[in-house]
Order: sequence, then C-alpha cells, then structure tokens
Amino acid sequence: MNRRDFFATTALGGAASVLAPTAGFAFPSAVLNAIPPARMKLSFKPFTLELKHPFGVSVNTRSTTPIVLTTIEYGKFKGYGEASMPPYLGESQESVMKFLAKVDLSKVENPLELETILSAVDAIEPGNTAAKASVDIALHDLMGKIMGQPLYNVWGFNKAKTPNTVFTIGIDTPEMVRKKVQEVDPQFKLLKIKLGRDNDREIIEAVRSVSDKPLVTDANQGWNNKERALETIHFLKEKGAVLIEQPMPKEMVDENAWITERSPIPVMADEAIKRLPDLIKMKGVYHGVNLKLMKTTGLREAHKMIILARAFGMKLMIGCMTETSCGITAAAHLTPMVDWADLDGALLSKNDAFKGLTFVDGKITLPNAPGIGAVPR
Amino acid sequence: MNRRDFFATTALGGAASVLAPTAGFAFPSAVLNAIPPARMKLSFKPFTLELKHPFGVSVNTRSTTPIVLTTIEYGKFKGYGEASMPPYLGESQESVMKFLAKVDLSKVENPLELETILSAVDAIEPGNTAAKASVDIALHDLMGKIMGQPLYNVWGFNKAKTPNTVFTIGIDTPEMVRKKVQEVDPQFKLLKIKLGRDNDREIIEAVRSVSDKPLVTDANQGWNNKERALETIHFLKEKGAVLIEQPMPKEMVDENAWITERSPIPVMADEAIKRLPDLIKMKGVYHGVNLKLMKTTGLREAHKMIILARAFGMKLMIGCMTETSCGITAAAHLTPMVDWADLDGALLSKNDAFKGLTFVDGKITLPNAPGIGAVPR
Repeated sequence: MNRRDFFATTALGGAASVLAPTAGFAFPSAVLNAIPPARMKLSFKPFTLELKHPFGVSVNTRSTTPIVLTTIEYGKFKGYGEASMPPYLGESQESVMKFLAKVDLSKVENPLELETILSAVDAIEPGNTAAKASVDIALHDLMGKIMGQPLYNVWGFNKAKTPNTVFTIGIDTPEMVRKKVQEVDPQFKLLKIKLGRDNDREIIEAVRSVSDKPLVTDANQGWNNKERALETIHFLKEKGAVLIEQPMPKEMVDENAWITERSPIPVMADEAIKRLPDLIKMKGVYHGVNLKLMKTTGLREAHKMIILARAFGMKLMIGCMTETSCGITAAAHLTPMVDWADLDGALLSKNDAFKGLTFVDGKITLPNAPGIGAVPR
Repeated sequence: MNRRDFFATTALGGAASVLAPTAGFAFPSAVLNAIPPARMKLSFKPFTLELKHPFGVSVNTRSTTPIVLTTIEYGKFKGYGEASMPPYLGESQESVMKFLAKVDLSKVENPLELETILSAVDAIEPGNTAAKASVDIALHDLMGKIMGQPLYNVWGFNKAKTPNTVFTIGIDTPEMVRKKVQEVDPQFKLLKIKLGRDNDREIIEAVRSVSDKPLVTDANQGWNNKERALETIHFLKEKGAVLIEQPMPKEMVDENAWITERSPIPVMADEAIKRLPDLIKMKGVYHGVNLKLMKTTGLREAHKMIILARAFGMKLMIGCMTETSCGITAAAHLTPMVDWADLDGALLSKNDAFKGLTFVDGKITLPNAPGIGAVPR
C-alpha cells in the first residue's frame, strides 16, 4: 500500500465516522495529515497538593505535597505532566523550575523522537528525577495525542490486564490506623501498611482487628537488624502480607540480600532501585522492584526497566508519590505489565487538579482518550 | 483536553490538509475515529527469492531462499510480513505454513495489543522463529498503519540516526571475492567479509588488493582453535576489520569468552544469541550481538533485546537473512539504536517483492509512510 492508496482507503473513508462515532467497539484511527511545523513549547507552574490526612512514612509526616505542573505544546496539541516532590527526596518546586528553565525544546523538529529528546533532557545535569519526569510525562501525553492513541495502545499493552490498586494507610497510632482501615472504601481489595517504626506488630494487629484484606507491607528502610526483620516478615506472612518493601536501608545490600534469600514473601526494592542502572546493580538482591515515575525520570525509563525486570524474572510493582491524577494515570498505563500497583496517590488528596484513571471494584481502569487521558479539572 | 475538544481541534480542522498535504515538514497526525469492529485475518503464501550470486557462508552455498509472505488484515488496513528460511536454520516453507495455520487471530478484539497477541503466538509451540517473525512483522506494519505512524515514530527513534549498511561479500574463491568487491556500488561504506574456511588470510588479501573500505568480518562459527582465532583477529584488525562475528561454535562458550577478553576489536554473537533469554545467558561472553528478526521472532523481541543490550553496555548490530524489502525495512526501523547494520539482504536478490528502505550514500534511509513503509511491487 503506498501513500496514495492509504489516503484513499483511510482518510476519506474515515471522514464520516469521525463526525458520528459509533457506539460499541471504537478505537482511534489515523490519517496521514500534514501538520504545519510548530515549535515545541514547555511551560510550568507550581501547585500545592493538599492531603486529606497528614501522611506519615517512617521518616516524617506532612499535610501537603509540592508539585510542579508542566505543559508541552506543539501546534494545536497539548501534553500535560507533573513533578511531585515529597521533601525527603531532595527536590523542591524551586529546583524543579530551575531545571525546567534549562530545557529548550524549541529546536526539536519531530516531537515524536522521544529517545533523542529525553536523552538530551537527562544529560542537562544529574539527579532532578522528578523534574525530568515532568517533561517525560508531558511528552508522552503529547505523543499519544498526536498519534490519536492512548499510551497503552502505543506500547501494545492489554488494558484489561490492569491490576487492583492497593490503598495505603499512612503511619499513625494503632488506634488511628484502625480507624483509617475502617474508613477505606470497600472497593479496594488490598491495603498497604507502612511499617518500620517500633510498633509494627501492634499496627498489624490493629489492621487485622477490623479487616482481613491481603496486605502489602512497606518498611521504608526502617529496620536495622536482619534477623529481627526476617522474624517480622514471617509474622507478616502469617498475617496475610503478600510482599514486603525495602526492609532495610538501601546501603545494607548484603543484609537485604540475606533477607531476600530467606523471605517467605517477595522482597521488593523501593529506595534501593531508582533508575535503570540500579536495577542491574541490584539484580539478585531483591525479588522485585517498585517503580515510581518520580524516581525513574518518567515513563520511558520505567518502560525499559519493566522489560529488564521481566527478562530477569523479577516481580514488578508500580507506585507513586502523592500526585495529581495526571502523573498517576500516566503510571497506570504501564500496569498491564506488573504484578501489583500502588496508585492511590491522587485519592489521598483534596484538590486533585486532573481527572484521569478510575477504580472499578478497586481495579485500575484506564481512560480511552489519546495520550494519558487525564483532563484538567 | 477531553474527547470532544480533541475532535474539534484535530479531526475537523485536519480534514482539508488531508486532501492537500503541504510540502515541507509533515508528519502523520491522527483523529479519534470510530472503526467498525473487524476480524483480524492472517493469510500467507510461499515465495522463492532468487539470488543474484550463489551465496556462500561457511556451511553451504545456494542460489535461492525460500520465503513465506504474510498479510494481516483488519478492516481496511493491511499489514505485510515475511518469513525467510535459509535451509541450514531448520525451518521451511512447509513448517512455516503449518505453524501459521495454527495462528487464529479472529478473536482478537484490539489489533494494537501486540504484547498479548505475540505472547499467544509464541506459546503455540517452541522454535519456529521465522514463522513467528512473519506474524510479528505483519502485525507491526498493521499497527503503524492504524496509528498513521512509521514504526520509528511509534518507538520514538530519530530516523536521522540510522547507520550505513554493510554490503556482504559471500564466501567464494579469492579471485571471485576480488571480482565481487570490485563490483560493489561505491556508495557502500563498509564491506562484510565471510570467513571461517581455511583461506581467511588469502580472502582478506584479495579484498585489500582492490578496496580499502573498513571490514565487518564474520567467521560464522568456522574456527575451532581459540589461539589461532585470536591470531587471525589481530591480523584482521591490522587489515582494517572493525568487528568479528561469531568466531567459534556457539557451544564453545568458554573459548568465545576467552577470545572476547583478548580481542582488539568487538566480538559479536550471531548464532549464540537468538532470543532474549540467550542475551542474558551469554552476558559477558561477547562484546555485542547481531540481532536478526528471523532469530528473535520479530521486532517486538528485538526491540526488547536492544533495551537489554544497551543496559548491559553491549554493542549492537542488526542483520538479516536474504529477505525481501519487507523484512529488511522492518528491521531498518530499529537501526537508529544500533552501532552497525547489515541490511543488504534484499539487494542480493533478483526478484524483491517489495519496495522499501533505500540507501543514500550507503546510509539506511527509512520510508516515511505508516507502518513499515514497504510497498508490494
């Protein structure tokens, strides 16, 4: 089929159905369309995400998350992205905006050359993973919109294969944990319990006093003795935990590996594996990894890490920071390829700036719209 | 941007320019288009590719290559693929057609779910890598056509970064090799010389008597003594070889690794690394790998292998069998990510059934049409 045939069979034939899309099966098609050359334009603004509950992990507690919202425009197309900066990870609205000011996309000829564009962005300076993710996410949204395809279609994934999300209970007193668990919408099928202080068993007993849901447990590097950690993991397994995240500090490689060899449930890396080279360095130390776009610099590297982890026979989870439904929905497009997902980040907020994925009986349900499919509220 | 906005800004606004595409910068855009549900339909037919010169490698010589051409239709879209079966690799037109008869795509709802579809095809039975590639290639062509995008855009690659192709001189008498080298179109910047019989140095001297182009050398497992192999490689390096492929039989893992440790030029696996798990098993044994779609089961696994090999810091080459410009052009879309390409397979034939990639001063030049961009002649 040459170009002319392609025009004849798709562009003209398709015109009527564009105006009157049928119900039932429908997916975006495409026509060879000449778009006037445009300049890519990146813009950004700070945003403060307000949390419903003060959110505790092993190292701190807070009630807002600083965000930077990004937009990349190309002609009439507009892609949305975001950076989320929980303070303990070292980035801030200021550092992100300083980084983004150095990103010059005005000379890019083909906005679909993501490999080239994102390599150049990555090379600007080291670190700044959330800032880089905010460019990556907006660029993927733009790409999908130009192609008229939701991201899961661009990657060839089956949207029916998304997992249930876990719903996270932040660190709190056993009494408050019990209360929070009771408040969880019954649609969520798994609970994520943050551990790593000195009352882990008390917390778990509090959860179990009001719920028998399977538990995803996360020590956030909070344990410092491998034997005691392993004992606790056996206790957690008995109490219905399906995995344990980052039992000991990431620097304690041998100790984490020792636990992995002996653990009755998968031991997942979080802090220990941020980007692709970490995955190779840490092969064998953990059973799997929890990928988060704000660590991986976004979707493109996360997608590569999924391919690597699968090739290594590792388990996969996709997680998030507290983010708007823009970043969360972007990550959700990767979930048909993973074992677990922790994508409740937007549900924990009071002022989500986007409308995106939904949860149907707890199962991640992707929008069909082109790109990420997250729409500003 | 919600669906309705998207319609308003792209579909209707784009209609005029579809009819009159502008010159200058233009790339395929897309509209949200409702396509009536269709059944995917796979069809296939045998084809005999006739070679310009009898083609020799270390194990045999022949003047035709058996091919099976595939088509996957979905509504008005049609994707093209092929299987090429050099006899020594164990597949035949009969085995391929027997395999393809077992591929039932009629129940696939979303033709863009490549991960699911190709996993199911792979699971039908082991082996049959060329047969599987013929489905993979046609499916990628179909996917690109549905999206209105050339494959390099779907993968986010920069089409300007394609390498020069090598031009292959088959095994022959030194006199014939000299003659063939003299006949090579001067546009080709690198020559590939097949070695592995008992006259390697004589062949190289014959080449060097008429050409000073850099050489890609390939022993095709033809050497059986590691010390002698290493000596020959030093000789080849002096004579301008830039790499050596598969010096010893793939089963001689330690010997190949011994050569890799000492070789002054990259040692590339060919026969030793067919599919993705081989890449992990052979990590460290070779500096790099020559990927061929007929070994990898097609583009999707080759794309994953590129991501893995890059993560491992390995060199990459993309090669081919003698194939039509359908399979060759498909492989060419991956070449912006590799160091070398050996994609002369269609040039060596007299009756290429497709028109696809071109070579401009030896550089691989990708078509801009959606999908693979290879058109039946």
